[in-house]
Amino acid sequence: MGVVIPLESGQDTGSSVKPLVELTAGDIERVNHLILSKTGSQVEMIPAVAKHLIDSGGKRLRPMLTLAAAHMCGYQGPHHITLAASVEFMHTATLLHDDVVDESDMRRGKQSARMVWGNQASVLVGDFLLGQAFRMMVDAGSMEALDVLSTASTVIAEGEVMQLSAAQSMETTEDDYLAVIRCKTAALFSAACEVGPVLAESNKPVRDAFRSYGTNLGLAFQLIDDALDYGGSKADLGKNVGDDFYEGKITLPVLLAYRRGDEEERAFWREAMETDSSDSQALSKAMDLLAKHGSIGDTVARARHYGEMARDALAPLPECPRKQALLSVVGFCISRVS
Amino acid sequence: MGVVIPLESGQDTGSSVKPLVELTAGDIERVNHLILSKTGSQVEMIPAVAKHLIDSGGKRLRPMLTLAAAHMCGYQGPHHITLAASVEFMHTATLLHDDVVDESDMRRGKQSARMVWGNQASVLVGDFLLGQAFRMMVDAGSMEALDVLSTASTVIAEGEVMQLSAAQSMETTEDDYLAVIRCKTAALFSAACEVGPVLAESNKPVRDAFRSYGTNLGLAFQLIDDALDYGGSKADLGKNVGDDFYEGKITLPVLLAYRRGDEEERAFWREAMETDSSDSQALSKAMDLLAKHGSIGDTVARARHYGEMARDALAPLPECPRKQALLSVVGFCISRVS
Repeated sequence: MGVVIPLESGQDTGSSVKPLVELTAGDIERVNHLILSKTGSQVEMIPAVAKHLIDSGGKRLRPMLTLAAAHMCGYQGPHHITLAASVEFMHTATLLHDDVVDESDMRRGKQSARMVWGNQASVLVGDFLLGQAFRMMVDAGSMEALDVLSTASTVIAEGEVMQLSAAQSMETTEDDYLAVIRCKTAALFSAACEVGPVLAESNKPVRDAFRSYGTNLGLAFQLIDDALDYGGSKADLGKNVGDDFYEGKITLPVLLAYRRGDEEERAFWREAMETDSSDSQALSKAMDLLAKHGSIGDTVARARHYGEMARDALAPLPECPRKQALLSVVGFCISRVS
Repeated sequence: MGVVIPLESGQDTGSSVKPLVELTAGDIERVNHLILSKTGSQVEMIPAVAKHLIDSGGKRLRPMLTLAAAHMCGYQGPHHITLAASVEFMHTATLLHDDVVDESDMRRGKQSARMVWGNQASVLVGDFLLGQAFRMMVDAGSMEALDVLSTASTVIAEGEVMQLSAAQSMETTEDDYLAVIRCKTAALFSAACEVGPVLAESNKPVRDAFRSYGTNLGLAFQLIDDALDYGGSKADLGKNVGDDFYEGKITLPVLLAYRRGDEEERAFWREAMETDSSDSQALSKAMDLLAKHGSIGDTVARARHYGEMARDALAPLPECPRKQALLSVVGFCISRVS
């Protein structure tokens, strides 16, 4: 079922998350330590739920971005650790609430927290983690970082609500869809990157560069995620092929196929996405239509476009191993489709 | 159905929220204005849900506490408005999430937001409001106030999770129950009061006085709420008599009756509170048992105890109209049972 998208020449050098992982390994250990200590609570269920999610194989991509950005900007203090942990908590809280909102059964190949502890605990532990994220931001002591991250937190929620309103209609435009993922995914990538230079008190062009890098990396990341939903394997991703389809979650591959299809095909998509009627036969037809219109390949091409923007955003900054690592992450995000 | 608890002599002078309302009227108008402007979003559903809840007859008690406390401590700046609005947003976000967790149909006599827009929107708009609350705290520019309020935000969530775990057992002790309401209700009252002296940069004894006043006022408030659930009328409260009972929410009146009852009565309570089987006949029996053991009157007596602690917490502070107004609010909270 894998969709192999050949990487264009010149882009396959440095398509790896490895350099970033290696450069931030020591710091990530401190972040993990902090995360564990901040999920502690005398209320037993809280550490249990938090541990379930935090242990369940996330890559810690967002905190690694914070760590690398801070160091790249010459930051020498301790607060990049605190903010990196905050970013991961915000992400985790969002996942908990998302699973409730989407009624998801699985998350990264394990039962979702709501299936184990129920929706109620997922909502409340999400709130707890969000509160802890803000407390850690306060510990870090930077009002500007607080501003960046608290703004991201409202923007993420706005994106989710937007998706809730838009999700049910196949008339969603590509622009509408981009507006949603710009909020719900890219905003946190962007904030995670921007707080690095904020801590380092870098000048505005540097801050802008990291913000733009993060935003575009986030867009690329989400589009690839959307493509993978119709082409990854369960083992790779902890998702089943077609999860978005069965949930009626309208993503770019589907929007492209819908716009390019004839009347009969559009009727199929409306029926499949706007009602609860989809079965594996419908998924199979959907996959055929996606293939017919090249929708997955073109979604990846769109992702590559944002990936290029992310790379170019960092271009003016001086060369260093961390910059190379961040550039390489762009390739990694896109090359996940394989 | 009203339970009339005679106010002891000496406590019926100044049992009114009116002085507080009058002293903060101008500021509250500015708070309302700010609240409206901060619920704006291009995502239509957000202002709709937020407006539904914010318009639905809340008393703005918590923000009034912030405003009065700040002025009483001599604060002259503009940020008490911002923090008061933050406090109300935190409260509103909690209500949205609570209704989802408790599966409540009504809130203050109107359909709850989740009944109108669904659980999904309630979770997400709650997240949005929480994010906006933090952004406003950042605007207010006080790290200490941020610390106080973000800590309250995690403590509230902890309290809710604690309730989730404890809610199902009649073996909950009075102390366990107090620990829950100390987190889920009193923490926000306490933080709302404490940020006043924080803004005014008052000394530690003054801060401590307001924190203690808020905590104990919050405990009294919640205990009276619990008593009212078995004795208020729908029109007064926007709740039906017995809501907590039907939802199996174990509160102090029930815990007292359970502890004081014989084996047959305890079996009744376990059956009624720990299963979904309660009907109006069961409620009627429950009311009889509460009356037999004086549980409602004693819950009010407990509330009065915390009310006294709240008054005494403010005692060392110099007399002024705002102090009188805050003292009078204590009497008001308790005299709601009538």
